[in-house]
Amino acid sequence: MPDKKAVVLLSGGLDSATTLAIACSEGFSCYALTFSYGQRHRREIDAAKKVADSLGAIEHRIVTIDLASFGRSALTDSTLNVPKDNIHIGEPGKIPVTYVPARNTIFLSYALAWAEVLGAFDIFIGVNSTDYSGYPDCRAEFIAAFERTANLATAAAVEGKGRYRIHTPIIEMTKAQIIRSGTQLGVDYSLTHSCYDPDERGRSCGRCDSCRLRLKGFAEAGLKDPIEYKNE
Amino acid sequence: MPDKKAVVLLSGGLDSATTLAIACSEGFSCYALTFSYGQRHRREIDAAKKVADSLGAIEHRIVTIDLASFGRSALTDSTLNVPKDNIHIGEPGKIPVTYVPARNTIFLSYALAWAEVLGAFDIFIGVNSTDYSGYPDCRAEFIAAFERTANLATAAAVEGKGRYRIHTPIIEMTKAQIIRSGTQLGVDYSLTHSCYDPDERGRSCGRCDSCRLRLKGFAEAGLKDPIEYKNE
Repeated sequence: MPDKKAVVLLSGGLDSATTLAIACSEGFSCYALTFSYGQRHRREIDAAKKVADSLGAIEHRIVTIDLASFGRSALTDSTLNVPKDNIHIGEPGKIPVTYVPARNTIFLSYALAWAEVLGAFDIFIGVNSTDYSGYPDCRAEFIAAFERTANLATAAAVEGKGRYRIHTPIIEMTKAQIIRSGTQLGVDYSLTHSCYDPDERGRSCGRCDSCRLRLKGFAEAGLKDPIEYKNE
Repeated sequence: MPDKKAVVLLSGGLDSATTLAIACSEGFSCYALTFSYGQRHRREIDAAKKVADSLGAIEHRIVTIDLASFGRSALTDSTLNVPKDNIHIGEPGKIPVTYVPARNTIFLSYALAWAEVLGAFDIFIGVNSTDYSGYPDCRAEFIAAFERTANLATAAAVEGKGRYRIHTPIIEMTKAQIIRSGTQLGVDYSLTHSCYDPDERGRSCGRCDSCRLRLKGFAEAGLKDPIEYKNE
């Protein structure tokens, strides 16, 4: 059987860790791709390294991109505060302050470039629309449009060597379903990191949108979150 | 009249310089965006700075991107040779060795991010398909697919603030038509740079695809190319 390669976007959070585990379980040789984009903390990238290693990725690349220079997101702009104590994610019609302009478009473009060089036609991304994030670039319509673009953008597709497919295996799962699937596939969630605003020791705040969605997910899955929180 | 902002991709070559001049002539306040992506020479970026300045761009940003780490193009990989002495560009069904995987997808993604932050909905790119380059991401079908993706990817579009439009004003022009249009709009082509393989003094080789297309264009336009060539 020929080697089926896939590029898997990996942030170090639980969604992308689960996505990587699913890609591996489907028989792909996985090439993990992580971006360093002016996040406030290195914690996330360290988590991505551990996750890639523990799930047996063939290779893990970390690409530095300069999103911070464009500004205007609480995730890249240190003058904006990360919202706390309410789940702002999922407010109907509201796009959270943590939205990063065109982030997934940029991430998928790099994944496409690497896929073409590797001779891979499969790209996995852990977007999720059920725990609806309010991020426009996490929706199926966006992914379908990008996939179409990818198949017009590249020499490999135009020369008929294959068709690119953007896989979104967790797009319709709840956080609890993601955690249950990953647990069955052997994901070690103690290696993952979700908090937007960890303390100097790397402990999660437990209060930002990302922590709250995570904790709610573990509670609904009937499992204990293995990471350390500040006020435990 | 409200300020109409546009992001204009600018390489420092004559196509993108002409595109910037056209965007300015259409009344846009132009924000020029140049990428440093492991090209062999800084000459191109220096040219972009001079062109942006001479045409009155409001701002010029240079973003460093790490395309070289993915390899596999004569423009980013120093182990491949730039082809010489024949115009390889335009051979039917052949994609040149100077093709960079997913390059325009990555460039347009960054332009989209900056446009969203600026509140701009217009992006200009100097792709050209008449002097057909063989690059899949220079075709109108690709541009249309990216435009559709942009309008699904971003908060600004989803919130109904506007619709992104990718402008390709020179897509159907011959090189001679591009040079004539730019000359009428006051482009100083002595500031532009096209050569894939300039010498240590920055003089163009006159032999690579890019030089040959340029020289042919000036000849057909009945104009003299004002830049310096090695064997003049």
